[in-house]
Amino acid sequence: MASKNKTVITVEPNKQELFITREFDAPRALVYKAHTDAKIFTQWLGPRGYEMVLKEFEPVSGGKYHYIHKDQDGNEYGFRGAFHTMSEELMIQTFEFEGMPEPGHVALDTMRLEELPNNRTRVTIHSVYQSVADRDGMVQSGMERGINDGYERLDDLLKEM
Amino acid sequence: MASKNKTVITVEPNKQELFITREFDAPRALVYKAHTDAKIFTQWLGPRGYEMVLKEFEPVSGGKYHYIHKDQDGNEYGFRGAFHTMSEELMIQTFEFEGMPEPGHVALDTMRLEELPNNRTRVTIHSVYQSVADRDGMVQSGMERGINDGYERLDDLLKEM
Repeated sequence: MASKNKTVITVEPNKQELFITREFDAPRALVYKAHTDAKIFTQWLGPRGYEMVLKEFEPVSGGKYHYIHKDQDGNEYGFRGAFHTMSEELMIQTFEFEGMPEPGHVALDTMRLEELPNNRTRVTIHSVYQSVADRDGMVQSGMERGINDGYERLDDLLKEM
Repeated sequence: MASKNKTVITVEPNKQELFITREFDAPRALVYKAHTDAKIFTQWLGPRGYEMVLKEFEPVSGGKYHYIHKDQDGNEYGFRGAFHTMSEELMIQTFEFEGMPEPGHVALDTMRLEELPNNRTRVTIHSVYQSVADRDGMVQSGMERGINDGYERLDDLLKEM
């Protein structure tokens, strides 16, 4: 189902950061639960047509995660990171795509969850990268499609929760 | 004892990152051990005149840390973070000073340990911040003194190890 909530991605030239803003028609506690309950999380994150396998998932401050996205041809894309802060207002975590030519290209993602009137929630993500090139590579990798697909599925799940 | 190895800190204007380079007269395995063995780590990190108390320390990929620096007047300064990658060549971790007015100001530190001839080691640290202001605040907080004091003590410890 199409959503009236639009994802806004802001990528200024020559910066090693980007911003993502999205609103949801659901209270903050539910949006947070969708990010921390493994059964729900694996149903919406990432582009459509991929199966998500959570290998490790400890969504607490000081915990870690590791997941694989499998496409319909059997290709696997691994991602891992550490949770620095996990609370309903603030989630801070590292993020690394395991398919890079060499390891060590890591982003720091800060997500703020803000309560809005009428049981709605605004999510703001601030991602910082080790270089402008790392950020631009992420943007060119299909990030926008993955985010839009994921959040549209999340809209539908939030209605059922 | 004074060291001939100089710490070079590079802070370009209007960037949300900085670089630190330092060489040590010791093999890489020993320099890595000094960062991951709690008994050694607490003897050198940070400015002189502080006692370091490690509250949590899991120096492995996906682990976390939390330590307190106590000054001679009894003031306490807490720091915590998550280890994203921990290996002898590459250490990536988050870093947060707990004394900020609000939580959520986090840096991402990438440390590379490079083997040099004659059993020497070069350490390169690349720190990225959520903003230029966060980076500048860190630089103005006495970071350089803390790093210089710490690495001079580490020089002395490496001779004994």
